[in-house]
Amino acid sequence: MAEQIEELNQTIQHLSDLIQSGQDNTFIDSFEALHEYEMAQAYAGLPEQFRSVAWRLLSDDILASVFDNLDVDEVDIVALLKEMPPRRGARILQEMYADNAADVLQEMPPRLVATYLSLMPKSEADEVRQLINYDEQTAGSLMSTEYLAVEENLHVDDVMHLVKKQALEAESISYVYVLDKQEHLMGVISLRDLLTHADDLPVINITNERIISVKAGDDQADVAQIVANYNFLSIPVTDDNNRLLGVITVDDIVDVIDEEAVEYYSGLAAVNVSQINDTPWHSAVKRIPWLIALLLLGMTTATLISSYDGLVRRASILAAFISLITGTAGNAGTQALALAVRRIAVGSDKNGLRDFFSEVIAGILVGIATGLSVFIVVALWKQNVVLGFAVGLAMTIAIIVANLAGYLIPVVIDKIGFDPAVASGPFITTLSDLTSVLIYFNVAQLFITHFIGG
Amino acid sequence: MAEQIEELNQTIQHLSDLIQSGQDNTFIDSFEALHEYEMAQAYAGLPEQFRSVAWRLLSDDILASVFDNLDVDEVDIVALLKEMPPRRGARILQEMYADNAADVLQEMPPRLVATYLSLMPKSEADEVRQLINYDEQTAGSLMSTEYLAVEENLHVDDVMHLVKKQALEAESISYVYVLDKQEHLMGVISLRDLLTHADDLPVINITNERIISVKAGDDQADVAQIVANYNFLSIPVTDDNNRLLGVITVDDIVDVIDEEAVEYYSGLAAVNVSQINDTPWHSAVKRIPWLIALLLLGMTTATLISSYDGLVRRASILAAFISLITGTAGNAGTQALALAVRRIAVGSDKNGLRDFFSEVIAGILVGIATGLSVFIVVALWKQNVVLGFAVGLAMTIAIIVANLAGYLIPVVIDKIGFDPAVASGPFITTLSDLTSVLIYFNVAQLFITHFIGG
Repeated sequence: MAEQIEELNQTIQHLSDLIQSGQDNTFIDSFEALHEYEMAQAYAGLPEQFRSVAWRLLSDDILASVFDNLDVDEVDIVALLKEMPPRRGARILQEMYADNAADVLQEMPPRLVATYLSLMPKSEADEVRQLINYDEQTAGSLMSTEYLAVEENLHVDDVMHLVKKQALEAESISYVYVLDKQEHLMGVISLRDLLTHADDLPVINITNERIISVKAGDDQADVAQIVANYNFLSIPVTDDNNRLLGVITVDDIVDVIDEEAVEYYSGLAAVNVSQINDTPWHSAVKRIPWLIALLLLGMTTATLISSYDGLVRRASILAAFISLITGTAGNAGTQALALAVRRIAVGSDKNGLRDFFSEVIAGILVGIATGLSVFIVVALWKQNVVLGFAVGLAMTIAIIVANLAGYLIPVVIDKIGFDPAVASGPFITTLSDLTSVLIYFNVAQLFITHFIGG
Repeated sequence: MAEQIEELNQTIQHLSDLIQSGQDNTFIDSFEALHEYEMAQAYAGLPEQFRSVAWRLLSDDILASVFDNLDVDEVDIVALLKEMPPRRGARILQEMYADNAADVLQEMPPRLVATYLSLMPKSEADEVRQLINYDEQTAGSLMSTEYLAVEENLHVDDVMHLVKKQALEAESISYVYVLDKQEHLMGVISLRDLLTHADDLPVINITNERIISVKAGDDQADVAQIVANYNFLSIPVTDDNNRLLGVITVDDIVDVIDEEAVEYYSGLAAVNVSQINDTPWHSAVKRIPWLIALLLLGMTTATLISSYDGLVRRASILAAFISLITGTAGNAGTQALALAVRRIAVGSDKNGLRDFFSEVIAGILVGIATGLSVFIVVALWKQNVVLGFAVGLAMTIAIIVANLAGYLIPVVIDKIGFDPAVASGPFITTLSDLTSVLIYFNVAQLFITHFIGG
């Protein structure tokens, strides 16, 4: 990775030098020789005064592929587009894949969207306008409308002719979709099959009619799971009447899988880990609200402990085990949470009651094993079997409760229609601090007479 | 997802019925009509007595694609293979893609590997044997050796002829690699370019010589990052002399991205989240060692608190804030940890000192904001400004330390060559409990005379 960043910096330096010394044609050649991803990185990395020369020199085509390869989550594409006159920007948006153009427009204020769309040819503008309307994180928002489709009554050579003609526009050429006259999706032909069968074979013979498709409103995570399972290179998206709307290509699925992983990972840590390049100030500003919210929740635990002040005064040894019990129960709760969230993410959460009892039993086993360990350690260390028993018993109950909470909270959040990833690990541990302390002091109270001598 | 599991169960029921009623040919037709992924799921899901009929009815070809589509991490493929005579198993391994066959053999005891390899034709056995030798999690272990390669002095129609001939064996037909006589990788031709250029064009004109390749020993996570960035459908793997060894296809990259995400996610929760379908007993057995290890680490904190028993006796109010300070510092540490691990994962961790100071500054800002909040809340609640100040100051210092530890521990683990994902969240929080308590009681001690009245 380090060499690649180094190489990119050298490329940017080289391109800047070419512009500065007025070697326009050499600049164009060097730029066009780059891979599309490198073009995009280099363009975004050029100092603004050189970029303002670059877009004047480069063709719409090349700039469209630059913008196709930038990620709206990482680069301020709108700002780059606004460096050019609106008419030029509209031409580039129109040359881009419709799904990517829609992603860029979705980052803009409505007035600017209207400006660009009004400058595009009506058919292209309509296509993009339609894509903008799909909710983020749905199949519709990922799909591209540049796909290969044919009617069913053709032969292999007809279809190959069409593939060759449209190959440069289509985002993926691995599959050709077969439609009826009403644009209903009837089947799919793989390019591999087209290449390995005789020219005069009717394509109906190599059309797979057991086609797997998704609906435009489907959750992107579910779509990603299907593509990953089936090892598809792309998947068709249909409306509720099975009319083909577009296709999602595997490169977008790769991004979705990474995006979903980041989301779950961020949830578990109560921090957005996609923002790793923030300034210290911005980074702190984003972390603080979470910490303060958790702190206020934690204050209820402090209040609770403070209400047992009489107990602590009588047996100050109890203070020693507060963090042990809250910490361990929190760890157990985090484990249960992580397993539950993962189970929901991969769709293995459909055995409701069985999962529930499994988790209850696992929690009891974990609680007993851990409680027993702490009983032995404390009894030996403090030479007080009753104290050990009280701490061990409290630990066992606290773990069973924390484990169950860690399991139930994401399941319930998912059931009521929210993303279970919002059930963050720190939230579970802070909540379990409260129940753990309550359990601990109540158990301790039962045995209090034995500690005063301890 | 739920419907799909439902559908799979119906398919398995239907296939079982066909076998039971002796409708062998209908069984074969129904089975072969399934998608490869569905075939695999259905085969693994059949009751064993029916599966023992199934493999007798199905061809080597179909069974190879069943085994190609099973995931060694999810299904006990070795057990499935051992249900057949070794000779049949070897035939299936030989029909599989070499990378998948190698994955299966890697799950077996050495004696069994030797048996299967001795039953395969020498050339196929050698190919697989070579793949077995690559370390897990490297590019070599992911690559397939069934790729399309040509020499450079050909024309478009020659290459298309070759693509058509080999299309059924190659794992990906999207790219054709250009090699010199010594098998050095010289460039790549995309199928798209082959389809859109004249038959008599020398392929050298459409060969891209700025080829991006990886080395067999490269880390799979780095390879995945490159494929994801460049939107490749496959990437070539070479040896140190730039000789082509194989290609990695995007479907394997999709699995790697998911696998890496699971690894990081598991690290953050101290539990292996890929094992979501364990029995409660197995699940508990896997979670307990982590909890006990963390518990023992937590005992040092308990010991530390216990050594401040005199202080707690004099000011029992101090007990109320132990879990608040350890909990909040733990949360801050987890945030810093998650950001650091992600930064390493995506390779944005190359600004060593700058990252370090950024994180120190962010930690100080977070510490001050949180400490100030707790100062205000405690001062008002307990009507004791000095107590509020002591708790707030302790909180600020504890957060700065926990934040720094959360950042430094994964960075150091990475630097000494281990996977930073092993720096688990619970480990950081348990460790930060210790430092937080130490800081808390030392700060409290400075102000002790003011609490006794509090």
